[in-house]
Amino acid sequence: MEGRKITMLGTGLIGDFYTMTLHGQRSRDRVEVVYSRTPERGQAFAERWDIPHSSTSLEGAVNHPDTDTVVVGLPNFLHEEAIDLAASAGKAVLCTKPLATSGEEAKRILDRVESAGVFAGYLEDLCYTPKTLKALAAVQSGAIGDVTWVRSRETHPGPHSAWFWDKDKAGGGAIVDLGCHCIKIIRNFVGKGNRPVEVMAWADTLVHPIKAEDNAVVLIRFESGALGQFEVSWTFRGGMDLRDEVAGTEGTIWLNHFLRTGSEMYSSGGGGGYVAEKLESTEGWLFPVGDEVAELGYVDMFTDMFEAMETGREPQETFYDGYIVNAIMDAAYRSAESRQWESVDVEWRGGVTPRISKDVATHDGHAIVKEEILPDGRRKLMLSDKDTGSVFDIVTES
Amino acid sequence: MEGRKITMLGTGLIGDFYTMTLHGQRSRDRVEVVYSRTPERGQAFAERWDIPHSSTSLEGAVNHPDTDTVVVGLPNFLHEEAIDLAASAGKAVLCTKPLATSGEEAKRILDRVESAGVFAGYLEDLCYTPKTLKALAAVQSGAIGDVTWVRSRETHPGPHSAWFWDKDKAGGGAIVDLGCHCIKIIRNFVGKGNRPVEVMAWADTLVHPIKAEDNAVVLIRFESGALGQFEVSWTFRGGMDLRDEVAGTEGTIWLNHFLRTGSEMYSSGGGGGYVAEKLESTEGWLFPVGDEVAELGYVDMFTDMFEAMETGREPQETFYDGYIVNAIMDAAYRSAESRQWESVDVEWRGGVTPRISKDVATHDGHAIVKEEILPDGRRKLMLSDKDTGSVFDIVTES
Amino acid sequence: MEGRKITMLGTGLIGDFYTMTLHGQRSRDRVEVVYSRTPERGQAFAERWDIPHSSTSLEGAVNHPDTDTVVVGLPNFLHEEAIDLAASAGKAVLCTKPLATSGEEAKRILDRVESAGVFAGYLEDLCYTPKTLKALAAVQSGAIGDVTWVRSRETHPGPHSAWFWDKDKAGGGAIVDLGCHCIKIIRNFVGKGNRPVEVMAWADTLVHPIKAEDNAVVLIRFESGALGQFEVSWTFRGGMDLRDEVAGTEGTIWLNHFLRTGSEMYSSGGGGGYVAEKLESTEGWLFPVGDEVAELGYVDMFTDMFEAMETGREPQETFYDGYIVNAIMDAAYRSAESRQWESVDVEWRGGVTPRISKDVATHDGHAIVKEEILPDGRRKLMLSDKDTGSVFDIVTES
Amino acid sequence: MEGRKITMLGTGLIGDFYTMTLHGQRSRDRVEVVYSRTPERGQAFAERWDIPHSSTSLEGAVNHPDTDTVVVGLPNFLHEEAIDLAASAGKAVLCTKPLATSGEEAKRILDRVESAGVFAGYLEDLCYTPKTLKALAAVQSGAIGDVTWVRSRETHPGPHSAWFWDKDKAGGGAIVDLGCHCIKIIRNFVGKGNRPVEVMAWADTLVHPIKAEDNAVVLIRFESGALGQFEVSWTFRGGMDLRDEVAGTEGTIWLNHFLRTGSEMYSSGGGGGYVAEKLESTEGWLFPVGDEVAELGYVDMFTDMFEAMETGREPQETFYDGYIVNAIMDAAYRSAESRQWESVDVEWRGGVTPRISKDVATHDGHAIVKEEILPDGRRKLMLSDKDTGSVFDIVTES
Repeated sequence: MEGRKITMLGTGLIGDFYTMTLHGQRSRDRVEVVYSRTPERGQAFAERWDIPHSSTSLEGAVNHPDTDTVVVGLPNFLHEEAIDLAASAGKAVLCTKPLATSGEEAKRILDRVESAGVFAGYLEDLCYTPKTLKALAAVQSGAIGDVTWVRSRETHPGPHSAWFWDKDKAGGGAIVDLGCHCIKIIRNFVGKGNRPVEVMAWADTLVHPIKAEDNAVVLIRFESGALGQFEVSWTFRGGMDLRDEVAGTEGTIWLNHFLRTGSEMYSSGGGGGYVAEKLESTEGWLFPVGDEVAELGYVDMFTDMFEAMETGREPQETFYDGYIVNAIMDAAYRSAESRQWESVDVEWRGGVTPRISKDVATHDGHAIVKEEILPDGRRKLMLSDKDTGSVFDIVTES
Repeated sequence: MEGRKITMLGTGLIGDFYTMTLHGQRSRDRVEVVYSRTPERGQAFAERWDIPHSSTSLEGAVNHPDTDTVVVGLPNFLHEEAIDLAASAGKAVLCTKPLATSGEEAKRILDRVESAGVFAGYLEDLCYTPKTLKALAAVQSGAIGDVTWVRSRETHPGPHSAWFWDKDKAGGGAIVDLGCHCIKIIRNFVGKGNRPVEVMAWADTLVHPIKAEDNAVVLIRFESGALGQFEVSWTFRGGMDLRDEVAGTEGTIWLNHFLRTGSEMYSSGGGGGYVAEKLESTEGWLFPVGDEVAELGYVDMFTDMFEAMETGREPQETFYDGYIVNAIMDAAYRSAESRQWESVDVEWRGGVTPRISKDVATHDGHAIVKEEILPDGRRKLMLSDKDTGSVFDIVTES
Repeated sequence: MEGRKITMLGTGLIGDFYTMTLHGQRSRDRVEVVYSRTPERGQAFAERWDIPHSSTSLEGAVNHPDTDTVVVGLPNFLHEEAIDLAASAGKAVLCTKPLATSGEEAKRILDRVESAGVFAGYLEDLCYTPKTLKALAAVQSGAIGDVTWVRSRETHPGPHSAWFWDKDKAGGGAIVDLGCHCIKIIRNFVGKGNRPVEVMAWADTLVHPIKAEDNAVVLIRFESGALGQFEVSWTFRGGMDLRDEVAGTEGTIWLNHFLRTGSEMYSSGGGGGYVAEKLESTEGWLFPVGDEVAELGYVDMFTDMFEAMETGREPQETFYDGYIVNAIMDAAYRSAESRQWESVDVEWRGGVTPRISKDVATHDGHAIVKEEILPDGRRKLMLSDKDTGSVFDIVTES
Repeated sequence: MEGRKITMLGTGLIGDFYTMTLHGQRSRDRVEVVYSRTPERGQAFAERWDIPHSSTSLEGAVNHPDTDTVVVGLPNFLHEEAIDLAASAGKAVLCTKPLATSGEEAKRILDRVESAGVFAGYLEDLCYTPKTLKALAAVQSGAIGDVTWVRSRETHPGPHSAWFWDKDKAGGGAIVDLGCHCIKIIRNFVGKGNRPVEVMAWADTLVHPIKAEDNAVVLIRFESGALGQFEVSWTFRGGMDLRDEVAGTEGTIWLNHFLRTGSEMYSSGGGGGYVAEKLESTEGWLFPVGDEVAELGYVDMFTDMFEAMETGREPQETFYDGYIVNAIMDAAYRSAESRQWESVDVEWRGGVTPRISKDVATHDGHAIVKEEILPDGRRKLMLSDKDTGSVFDIVTES
């Protein structure tokens, strides 16, 4: 029942969410060291979460002798340096999303941890929400047949730290902040072995005085023919909208992770206190999520990571997955510029996926397009003529 | 309290829905003549709806002396001929969606009724659902600010007549059958005066043995910068999914017209009887819609048409609107082929719409990107540096 | 295609809703005369709805030669006089809910119209919502088996006119204002022939400075064993909550008529304009209903009434039904006082209903309580011992 | 980071849920010993959950030297003996719901652990669902004002073990199995210090061939005037319905724990595998819950229990709470028999709660019943006459 001993790099919102999870419920794991550039923030964080050591030295925090695992919760442009240090220290490293600011950088990071031989996990919480895990198991068991389309939507009124809004530090805007979640969710539902072939993106800065995009819609075409689609926005009003939809040849899945989860409250405005992330008001109809770190996947994510470490298997989400995400985002930005589909440039390890299958029945040699039972019990068949391809219908007795 | 006297052309599902509406509740209007190519279908329809005259002559039905209004409910490729006859007869003509099989044909139809000077209305029911009308009024009153994005989704397991599936007769597949609704809904929410500039489309035939597309996702960029997005499918499982979402700078709208409307039933399978259009089963959890012709907009649609005729105003949806829809669908098919954005070729009558407005406040000359109130009451400002555009934050007392 | 010519008695909120419906869509019916005690209100109403005649004489309005039908939309304590006048005039009379302020008064009213031989209809709109009509048809077709339990809930922040709050004028409080709807809904679902045997009620004045109850919960036991349950409140926060739930031996029905109907809007507060009845704000998350008079049942209600008149059949809801409602409310008030179950005193015309049926299978002579399929395919039977009645389980091969 | 070492008594469904939770995620706690009457079941359970010791001796299992905590997951009529043994062993004891088969037995159990001085916790999982905890915090912060009404509903198609159905072993039927949850939920929302004064119950056996009730509705009146209401059923169709609703003077809360939680799936029937507790089918529209043991409160429940033990505080739910639940159920059974309100007999430790408060504003000495803003900006006041109590309205300028 030994737990992990963790160095936490970064004290922003994500550091709080991570530590709340790591120290939550009956956990056996602990953050032992926290790093922040500014001593005040580091000390406040250490006090808030009862952490023994606080440091302003990145190298010192990573190499601290009390820890075996490094969690990177820093701004995107600082990931590579931190991961490099952890690899040198021979420690397990878990990095928040997105892995890097570009596919090229992500590939360098991937190569670094692979050559160092350290355990590396990609912290993509929304791939681990309990609803998503259950839905994924259903898809993998065949409950909805072959997946034809996945929609992932993440929108809210914008992030809480300045660097997110700064294209040069983040590597982009809403696509980088939010789209990285969506891409990973989509890939899991269409199948990790289903190669992302090409990408078409629309991106625009509609509301905020920034250089990065605050709205985007991106399409991803996969080898099987399946389409992934995501919508991201920093201008959404009403809270945080996190929804996924999956269509298959035999079924449908709809997941709502935040605003409509069976928890509804109307308040005339009294009380107060924290209700939910990204909420705009504490009055009127509100939709609080029960246990946010559990519902957003943080709990199952760290469980998977630590179990993977302890049993010598790969975690569900790896640095390779993070690299694919960055490569798809690169293609999205190229497409937004070129205004046409752009291919995804990636060193593919995932094998080959066949085309979505269509078992077509025939009648007198004509393919059956659709079959309906009429009120009188007879069958109506819509048939594609075997010679001309024109569609006609007939009615049969049984 | 005089009512309209109507010639109904066509006896398919849409003819039934139209006549059920026209004869519904306390209506003063009546179908007096029905036309069908096959006498049995025409007579059965006339009996079903208590209609005095049934005819197999298109010309005879249109010119019948007892009627003043012609409703076209025929397959797409027969619209032009029927409208031409009605225009010659000097009668009001209402045509089902889509107006034509191409923008060019739609333009000829539009010119024909305009030169004949007859009343012409475009029967786009889903623009008239009570929810949509109320939402539209809210948008027009400014309740959600400038519209930035509209999603319209229509998917089901496929139509009931052979000609829909036949590309040559319908002019296309799911885009033509379902996308025409979505386009019109999107145009109403972004504003009819907001010019559709260009279109990007993905379309594929994933499941059915047909030449037409059975799945498509289409993006439409409008002059204001707003994005329209629609998803259509003939391979959806679980019923009929009709949803619209609108995002604005000051608010959000979500409409669900079919599968989740506050009406839920679980049945172990007894009973039976019609529950809802496009339903796959009468067992398990079902989601019946109360009054389908009202919820799907048919009632308000005919009210608008007839009031427009009687008062000499334009209806909400005109043949010009139908023409724009066809032009956008043409661009979608070109884009699916060329794999890049395609401009919408149209004779535009709608004027000019300004860019989505952003009133940006400043602090010491730097644009305010976002403002948050901290727990201690102080304000955190994220600012875009007026010189460099990099984003930084400060905390102020008030 | 002749329409009805109507005298409208009363110009309150209900008069507006009725007239909006009667003049709505393509209706052939018209209000020709309106009565109000105060001439200003009558004239304003006549102008608002384009009504030719306004009168301050109840007798004059009822007897006006231009009308054939009288609609009573007056406060409860004025119903009897108005109905008496209409009966004397030999005109059809439709009365808003509740029929009277007590069962005794309701019985006198019923006797009066029956002896006069005039058409009489009970205007209980919520029994006619399209969702309710469809659900009722499903229940009657056997889709959910025998009904075991019905819950009807109507709550909002309180009515808009002073007389509702005054026990002496209304005949009670929230039970009379709201419970009359619930009772009628419950009776329809358990079956009109299912005699209401006895009633248990809790009622209290929790918030408002009035003598009438502002909250109540009432149980009704029916002859079949089914239980009806309703909750009414004038202290609900968040809008108007109108929900019905039905449980049967073979299924379940959940209806939501107002706050969750697939129409959702978030607004930061701009715009304005009417959104929905009993709404508390026009900011934050709002849940507008599409077409209120249609969704609340007014349209189908008047259609039923007028078709019944024209074809000589009874309407769905009669004065006899109104009388039963009053008798049940009387029992509820007695029970709230006596603190025990009170029988419903009524001249019953509905016949006899058998006990909810239980087809019990047996195994070796023991009744099967429940049967489950185990993961290995064997059957687990929970059995009630034929001699002792104790429950035990066995596992069988098939 | 020491964990608890647990003896698990019982290997039924609840034993599985408990152990799944105790061994779940990154837990530091472990079940070391399991007891079952039948050796096969005990061994299978031990293997399933990787537990070192299995025993058929209740005494041996409780006194096993490797454990410090005893969890009682046995049928109701075996609780007292097991708790007595744990008290004698001086070990912490956690008992599943309901605590006993009657209030008298519950009181003996309470006295036993109190005199022994051992830690005792009442395992009422549904009081710990993350949604409930968050809602409870909102209520306690004043967000919905004074609570006036709580509804708790738990219904499903019936339990999985024979003893539940046997009145003599369980102490009752659906009230004992399901109502114990509801009572505890209601008490938490109205406030634990709010004395349950009296109870009115309807109970009947409508469908199953058993002596115990399979349906019941129970009302609980609290000292503050608030009403608790619960509905339980073993005849519900469609899965498991777990919903709570809370009304307050300033707000409203609606919680849905199972069938509508933002997770929806349609399947044509392929795949298979466990979807959710009490599900009737794996085809059609399904509503899987993400992480059942977390959503149903098991995780937060054990965390509270063990943290309470470790810090020397009381757990949220104590044996005293279990005793109150039994006393209320006793009153319910008496009321179902006597057909009138029955007082709750209990040694009350909770103090006194004032009546729900109504701050009534006045105008010219008359109490204001309601105030509305008219479209022209003037105020309409409904006033209760200070002398007569009759209600009248006036319109004022501001």
